[in-house]
Amino acid sequence: MFRMLRRLLALSPAFLLGGAAAFAAPPPPAAPPLLGFSAERAAAQRDLEARFDAVLRADNLRTWMQRLTAHPHPVGSPWGKENADFMAGLFRSWGYEVAIEEFQVLFPTPKTRLVELLEPTRFTARLAEPAIPEDSTSSQLAEALPPYNAYSIDGDVTGELVFVNYGTPADYEELARYGIDVRGKIVLARYGGSWRGIKPKVAAEHGAVGCLIYSDPREDGYTRGDPYPKGGYRPEHGTQRGSVADMPFHPGDPLTPGIGATRDAKRLERSAAQTLTKIPVLPISWADALPLLQALAGPMAPDAWRGDLPTSYHLGPGPAKVRLKLEFNWQQVTAYDVIAKLRGSKYPDQWIVRGNHHDGWVHGAADPVSGMVAVLEEARAVGELAKSGWRPQRTLVYAGWDGEEPGLLGSTEWAETHARELLEKAVVYINSDSNSRGLLDVGGSHTLEALVNQVARDVPDPETGASVGDRLRASAILNGAPDVRAEAREGKTFRIDPLGSGSDYTPFLQHLGIAALNIGYEGEGEYGQYHSIYDSFDHYTRFMDPDFSYGVTLAKTGGRLVLRLSEAEILPFDFQRLSATIGRYVGEVVKLADDLRDEATERNRRLQERTYELTDDPKSSLVPPKALDPVPFLNLAPLRNGADTLARSTRAWEKAVEARADKPLTTAEAEALNILLFRAERALTRAAGLPRRPWFQHQIYAPGFYTGYGVKTLAPVREALEQRSWKEAEEQAVVLGEVLAGYAREVDKATAVLAGK
Amino acid sequence: MFRMLRRLLALSPAFLLGGAAAFAAPPPPAAPPLLGFSAERAAAQRDLEARFDAVLRADNLRTWMQRLTAHPHPVGSPWGKENADFMAGLFRSWGYEVAIEEFQVLFPTPKTRLVELLEPTRFTARLAEPAIPEDSTSSQLAEALPPYNAYSIDGDVTGELVFVNYGTPADYEELARYGIDVRGKIVLARYGGSWRGIKPKVAAEHGAVGCLIYSDPREDGYTRGDPYPKGGYRPEHGTQRGSVADMPFHPGDPLTPGIGATRDAKRLERSAAQTLTKIPVLPISWADALPLLQALAGPMAPDAWRGDLPTSYHLGPGPAKVRLKLEFNWQQVTAYDVIAKLRGSKYPDQWIVRGNHHDGWVHGAADPVSGMVAVLEEARAVGELAKSGWRPQRTLVYAGWDGEEPGLLGSTEWAETHARELLEKAVVYINSDSNSRGLLDVGGSHTLEALVNQVARDVPDPETGASVGDRLRASAILNGAPDVRAEAREGKTFRIDPLGSGSDYTPFLQHLGIAALNIGYEGEGEYGQYHSIYDSFDHYTRFMDPDFSYGVTLAKTGGRLVLRLSEAEILPFDFQRLSATIGRYVGEVVKLADDLRDEATERNRRLQERTYELTDDPKSSLVPPKALDPVPFLNLAPLRNGADTLARSTRAWEKAVEARADKPLTTAEAEALNILLFRAERALTRAAGLPRRPWFQHQIYAPGFYTGYGVKTLAPVREALEQRSWKEAEEQAVVLGEVLAGYAREVDKATAVLAGK
Repeated sequence: MFRMLRRLLALSPAFLLGGAAAFAAPPPPAAPPLLGFSAERAAAQRDLEARFDAVLRADNLRTWMQRLTAHPHPVGSPWGKENADFMAGLFRSWGYEVAIEEFQVLFPTPKTRLVELLEPTRFTARLAEPAIPEDSTSSQLAEALPPYNAYSIDGDVTGELVFVNYGTPADYEELARYGIDVRGKIVLARYGGSWRGIKPKVAAEHGAVGCLIYSDPREDGYTRGDPYPKGGYRPEHGTQRGSVADMPFHPGDPLTPGIGATRDAKRLERSAAQTLTKIPVLPISWADALPLLQALAGPMAPDAWRGDLPTSYHLGPGPAKVRLKLEFNWQQVTAYDVIAKLRGSKYPDQWIVRGNHHDGWVHGAADPVSGMVAVLEEARAVGELAKSGWRPQRTLVYAGWDGEEPGLLGSTEWAETHARELLEKAVVYINSDSNSRGLLDVGGSHTLEALVNQVARDVPDPETGASVGDRLRASAILNGAPDVRAEAREGKTFRIDPLGSGSDYTPFLQHLGIAALNIGYEGEGEYGQYHSIYDSFDHYTRFMDPDFSYGVTLAKTGGRLVLRLSEAEILPFDFQRLSATIGRYVGEVVKLADDLRDEATERNRRLQERTYELTDDPKSSLVPPKALDPVPFLNLAPLRNGADTLARSTRAWEKAVEARADKPLTTAEAEALNILLFRAERALTRAAGLPRRPWFQHQIYAPGFYTGYGVKTLAPVREALEQRSWKEAEEQAVVLGEVLAGYAREVDKATAVLAGK
Repeated sequence: MFRMLRRLLALSPAFLLGGAAAFAAPPPPAAPPLLGFSAERAAAQRDLEARFDAVLRADNLRTWMQRLTAHPHPVGSPWGKENADFMAGLFRSWGYEVAIEEFQVLFPTPKTRLVELLEPTRFTARLAEPAIPEDSTSSQLAEALPPYNAYSIDGDVTGELVFVNYGTPADYEELARYGIDVRGKIVLARYGGSWRGIKPKVAAEHGAVGCLIYSDPREDGYTRGDPYPKGGYRPEHGTQRGSVADMPFHPGDPLTPGIGATRDAKRLERSAAQTLTKIPVLPISWADALPLLQALAGPMAPDAWRGDLPTSYHLGPGPAKVRLKLEFNWQQVTAYDVIAKLRGSKYPDQWIVRGNHHDGWVHGAADPVSGMVAVLEEARAVGELAKSGWRPQRTLVYAGWDGEEPGLLGSTEWAETHARELLEKAVVYINSDSNSRGLLDVGGSHTLEALVNQVARDVPDPETGASVGDRLRASAILNGAPDVRAEAREGKTFRIDPLGSGSDYTPFLQHLGIAALNIGYEGEGEYGQYHSIYDSFDHYTRFMDPDFSYGVTLAKTGGRLVLRLSEAEILPFDFQRLSATIGRYVGEVVKLADDLRDEATERNRRLQERTYELTDDPKSSLVPPKALDPVPFLNLAPLRNGADTLARSTRAWEKAVEARADKPLTTAEAEALNILLFRAERALTRAAGLPRRPWFQHQIYAPGFYTGYGVKTLAPVREALEQRSWKEAEEQAVVLGEVLAGYAREVDKATAVLAGK
């Protein structure tokens, strides 16, 4: 195998190194292969990357973070605008063409926030995060937005309280087992288990009139580690702000779905906006939640629902009776996107887009500034290379997005505004966001998995000396299923996660079908300040990445991805890994249908056998679960055939690659192939979008309608199954099968180029 | 099948109904089969049991519980003696021959108890349970033994504190990952995960100088439900007393191992006793533990180690520095066993022994009085039957044991004293202990599994109207592995647990090889008072079994077992279920050897691959785990062959049973067979006992040397594997194989009786 690889390196276009072959044998130490580069160009690229690395300075990250986090800077704030201007100035000084693009977006801020326990005792929630002497910016309370959930509606509701665990659909099924109905009630949910916006959405679907969300120390507080400022974890009054817009329906400005929120855009009335919540919702700290929990009676919560507060977790309803009153300033504010371009010398109409948001809920040191400063340093280093005479072959677009926190506003509105141009030109979108000490966290399009593996192989972890890829493979060996472990060992590769939502890649990947990546380091910071006033420079430099070495590592990672995509002779996309991944996903949904059938059969049999009545405590309020509608045998063959077609086309492509091993591509062939390679991702979208949510066009990767950030791959079929819509599952299996066959035709076109047809 | 069954019922000895056949078809509603009874005798038995049931009165249980729990009554206390006399009087009044047998046992009680936090702050533990107004006997503090662990040695030690989770061997392996050594330290362990006595034993093996054990609310406190007196769960100062004698080495009086602790018995010097702890140990409440936990620094405890107290759980060592000072009165006290006999009319030398202990750590309402009063009522009802002219065919022996709490003292000393007679005469020993609302909890010899199933089929659950067996089967359907679920459904049977230790069956089953059962109801009481001053009549009648209906149900269950064993024409033992169970255990240990091999291979490969260094946080103190010695392929064939021999003998027995279907046994044959049936259990013992613990003679059932209460089946092989003693595992596989072959020869003898040989 090794000999074969050498021959390929010597004689054929470097893109032939994609797929398994690139990883099957240990690379020669001096020159591991670079996907998309011939051996001689690879050497030049390696030299370029070494010069890039040499420019990076941790001190810049520190200085910029201190500057950007000096004051609260949410979208619409004076400091947000200052930061945009400051970054625009930096980009300009590095030689970029810079524009600040403005969008007018709906951004509610709180006017009234009241949570009162009325019965059986009285208590008024504090709803505020006190200043901490060790945290110098935590005293800027007057400038900060207090804890709230953006896009909650106004409301003044009173009702008995019910504890609903994470507030997911499954949690309400469990509540039904206890005979508890939340109609007319206020629910108390804890953070975790799903994206926060799911909690009020599902609560409203079940008839609740209000929703409180608190941070339980089990997930986010003293159970994780010492609270701030002794350690980095959430203190008793620390509260997680955040958006609750129905982003799985569509992100971006609620008044301009699908179009850019420019000054003159046609807007919906607020009453017609579909992504505002249906009920008022507010986040609270555990210090405010504890008296509410202590005032609940009724059955004990199920074991898995019990958090780590020093109380017995009861479900209610009541006797706790709560009033929740919320009023917002429903203002329109200006979002400032910073867009910096470095024009490509050879393929100016092929764009490598790289972004991070710059708005923070408060000071936002970790989220988003830690990622933003790494992206800035990456851009500066690229600018330094450019000042030395080098020019990128493809156009680089660096973006600092505003308004990500309330709903990916800046990125979505920009992507919608420039959709036509992006569909034509965007090769990839590479996102970052929060960053800290830890392991590489990478998700995205599986056509880029091979590239990511090579980059991770070449970036050193600053604390172990191993590569960041070695650490990821070690993690796969330690935690992975047997097949993942085997790939990590024998294949020397790791897998990347599919993307759901939660940051600015969503409009690019899922609305436009642009291959995307999300990269960052995580897991070894003490991350208890999320979306609180304590996400500060002081916190970050004590508990997240004190010497910014992982910030520099992120710059190295992002820089390599950008430079390899920008300079590759053949774009480093890889059909094989996408095809294999889709094959696994199809296997999962086929198994899901079988599992659902088994579950229904078993549950209904148990109901017949009185299993629940006989095992539940007779003195409890427990009632047996509802019978499940039997699951028919479903025709998922069209989906399986689509995946098979793709697998066949991918094999044909690989044979064609091998057949061209000794015959380099012509320039025209290479150019045609490059266009096919990056635009192929578009074939994974449908203009009609997903059922009931047309904005989401990607058919393979989507945020779950009931998970939010959590991904649902092959969503049209998987979610139909989960929602027990058997007919729709079969219909969507046909649709998805056609999508996969359509993608296979793009692969076939690429194969035809290789075959000289 | 049904027709066939009828034929058997009509024409053959009822013992032919043993095994699967008895459960394979729905029994005729009027007369489900009774194992060991012919159809006509079954009708009489059924009538007897109906009369027995009719006599039972819940009010008796209530009255006796109130009487027996009026004052603290540990072994050696005045009220303990009063209770023995009171019960002896009851038995006498019911027509039993009664003796109070006395043993002189070592029973240390506390003189000095001191726990002080010396650094970094000062705190002196309260070590006391306050009186609660709602609990009328909780004010009897002067009479009560305060919280302590019996058979801790004296000591006055000072050291840095280390949190060791449950304090099991695996926990110390995990500590080693953090580079933490407990030599010279005091360990803080939480209750749970193993029997309490394991904690100081393993701590001492690792060099610790002292041990504190606390009750974390996660396992035992507010996380389970509302604390007493609002609910039944452990309040902040509630503390679990208990023995820490090395009972897996031997139970009973530490000074008279293997012999009865009669007044003149030859005793060891205390310094030679092998079951006292090696280091001082004391139980504390969570209220006393919290300041200690809060004073720990060092690495955060692993996720699974974190309890539910409102603090971050650190491992230490230190800065918490603790002094633990303990002094005991090393007194000898008298244990009073109440022994009540009702002589058998037909087989006076076949004894059905039924027992429960009567001593409690304090008032002991649940533990043990709830079981004791059910056994008393059972004995009274049997006495009533006897007064009406009926006599049991076999001799019934009812026992109220003293001194169970410190170490199964009364039962062990009695069993050792009467070993010779018991080996000859004891058919079974049936134990009870704590009882509450809930499901039948039953463990024991698998030769009795078929009988237990029939009894459970015939005892109604008082709250659901179903049988208690139906509830157990429903639980098996809900929670069981697929094979267990299938047996519950298709076979209409449930499995019984093997017995480890923790109550008075141990000397009978594991020292003498008498088939045993332990029965009780559990799971639907609010059991947070265990071994505290709050285990009171007030608590019991609010939270455990307010109307004593499960006490009456226990009497019905025990009564049926006793009466069927006493009256059966052929003793209702069943080889088939034992053989099948042993077959499964053999499968488990064979798999264990393979799993250990895979684990060693995988761990050592990971060490080579630097998996741990690359996934552990580089700034943490984590060090990779130690390499494991490779696991050779072991010759477990002798064990497997032994199990196969038994399976073959069992099949031959079943064929012989079928062959005798039309030809009733002669009286001589039946008598010979009965002796063989009950004495067969002796063949599962070896006089040499288990390796390094000769007192434990049973080779199939044993408490784990490192789990205490937790059972280790096929202990000689299983524990050798777990201890990585490969040579011993192979040696013991030979020994165990011979034991199984020896048992098979007993089965063969029974078969020969059937064959008329």
